[in-house]
Amino acid sequence: MRVLVTGGAGFIGSNLVDRLLENGHTVVVYDNFSTGHERFLEKALQSPHFKLIRGDTLELDELTLAMKGAEFVFHMAANADVRFGTDHPKKDFEQNTMATFNVLEAMRATGVRRIAFTSTGSIYGEPDIFPTPENAPFPVQTSLYGASKLAGEGLIEAYCEGFGFQGYIFRFVSVLGERYTHGHVLDFYRSLLSNPDELRVLGDGHQRKSYLYINDCIDAMLLAIGTARDRVNILNIGTDEYCEVNDSIGWITEHLGLKPKLIYTGGKRGWVGDSPFIFLECEKIRFLGWLPKLSIHEGIIRTLKYLKANSWVLEAYS
Amino acid sequence: MRVLVTGGAGFIGSNLVDRLLENGHTVVVYDNFSTGHERFLEKALQSPHFKLIRGDTLELDELTLAMKGAEFVFHMAANADVRFGTDHPKKDFEQNTMATFNVLEAMRATGVRRIAFTSTGSIYGEPDIFPTPENAPFPVQTSLYGASKLAGEGLIEAYCEGFGFQGYIFRFVSVLGERYTHGHVLDFYRSLLSNPDELRVLGDGHQRKSYLYINDCIDAMLLAIGTARDRVNILNIGTDEYCEVNDSIGWITEHLGLKPKLIYTGGKRGWVGDSPFIFLECEKIRFLGWLPKLSIHEGIIRTLKYLKANSWVLEAYS
Repeated sequence: MRVLVTGGAGFIGSNLVDRLLENGHTVVVYDNFSTGHERFLEKALQSPHFKLIRGDTLELDELTLAMKGAEFVFHMAANADVRFGTDHPKKDFEQNTMATFNVLEAMRATGVRRIAFTSTGSIYGEPDIFPTPENAPFPVQTSLYGASKLAGEGLIEAYCEGFGFQGYIFRFVSVLGERYTHGHVLDFYRSLLSNPDELRVLGDGHQRKSYLYINDCIDAMLLAIGTARDRVNILNIGTDEYCEVNDSIGWITEHLGLKPKLIYTGGKRGWVGDSPFIFLECEKIRFLGWLPKLSIHEGIIRTLKYLKANSWVLEAYS
Repeated sequence: MRVLVTGGAGFIGSNLVDRLLENGHTVVVYDNFSTGHERFLEKALQSPHFKLIRGDTLELDELTLAMKGAEFVFHMAANADVRFGTDHPKKDFEQNTMATFNVLEAMRATGVRRIAFTSTGSIYGEPDIFPTPENAPFPVQTSLYGASKLAGEGLIEAYCEGFGFQGYIFRFVSVLGERYTHGHVLDFYRSLLSNPDELRVLGDGHQRKSYLYINDCIDAMLLAIGTARDRVNILNIGTDEYCEVNDSIGWITEHLGLKPKLIYTGGKRGWVGDSPFIFLECEKIRFLGWLPKLSIHEGIIRTLKYLKANSWVLEAYS
């Protein structure tokens, strides 16, 4: 299969690209390298079945050109940082909502009809039901990131109905592992490198979050695409567990052999729009036969090991 | 209160403007006259408390300028036609989603913090629950119009959380009455004027729809804004009844004294993305003390009388 991956130089995208190439597919990456990195494509660039196109999803003509001949689009390009939405609302709107509209228009122009989209558990806002199922009560958005992904989902669904597309919408918990470039593990590790005696924690540390290891995430996407047959396939992807931010701090500091003093900024939320509890019901994807191989604890330790072995990431993503 | 009404020259917008002026408010209309009409503002233009600004919601600078000094924004500007979404997906995206983003950004720039938004029952896609409540299961979009309004809702909610705005999101059934410029009553009336013996009906005629009379719609919005106090107030607005397209045809042809041969295009849906059954649960707005004064039948007849008395509408909106 000839596959286009937008954002294919990013964390999840580049891991997906390597797997797709391993599985014998031909892969075109379309990336503007705003958060992606060439080093993540070192392996892919050695493959004769791989092509890299530098381009922005906001450039519809270039994107359409890149799309030609593709049979499937993985639309992974996004501003993936939920935390700084209120600093620059335009970023989420352009990079996530408008970009998704462009991807769909490029597909329509080139006759590509299958798309996978990385959405988010943040789309549930602050739900009342845990674990939260895909058909949870109509949510109220609490972050610009969530709103931008909700808009992307709605567009994909409407194109599926209106133009006969087939869509795979994945609502992920936080993903971590090799090539991880933003999130609490990196933040805490960086902070502890500069000051091992003290760690500033956003919120009260009791926020409950779910995390998923990157390879498990890729497994889930590929399994769903291979087996789910609806026009619109919406799937939560996460582990059947959650941890407190404090648990994660304990694992990280233990692994590093540190006992920093913890300074909490206070409040139930780490930032405006932070969801204090994310825990997704994943029965739909489990029913297809998927099971995550790594626990949250294991995923966090792998991530830490990756960052320790790749200090360039801390410099490149500062 | 100084109020900005985007789309204030349109069907719902201009009726709202007249009422706001009657109630003693100062009103600025911002409209690009793509679907609005100056004749709808004839009365308003006589008021010293009214100002008309010709402008497009896609022009952020002009919009921001128009917003200055407002205390409340009614964001009614929209591409309101659900039916032709697949002919021009960009229209819904720009006129509804991007326009709403611009309105919110203009509010942020000028310090305006309260907004009312005309959303739609189409946002529920094809729901399983009837009447459909505001907290229905997370819907799957079936129209570009619904998707574009969903995106608008999500943005407003995120701005409420992120920037302390207060939002009123109204999910309307189809609204009709004086200044009605598009929809089945106009389509059927126009068709019967040109050929009284035959009427082409999209779908099988058994689509079940709800309609609301414009004055009841305005009553509901103003009551909600005056009484609902949440940060984000989401309210279905519709009658506690529905009718079949065939019922409506019966009322229209009876009123006109015609007995046309009905030719059905067939199928459960009138067009791609048409929802075969729209019936909203309106307990939330009813609980605030609102009750529609006109039945669907009465609203349809009023609309027909308006169109008969204002044949210029048929010419202006052909």
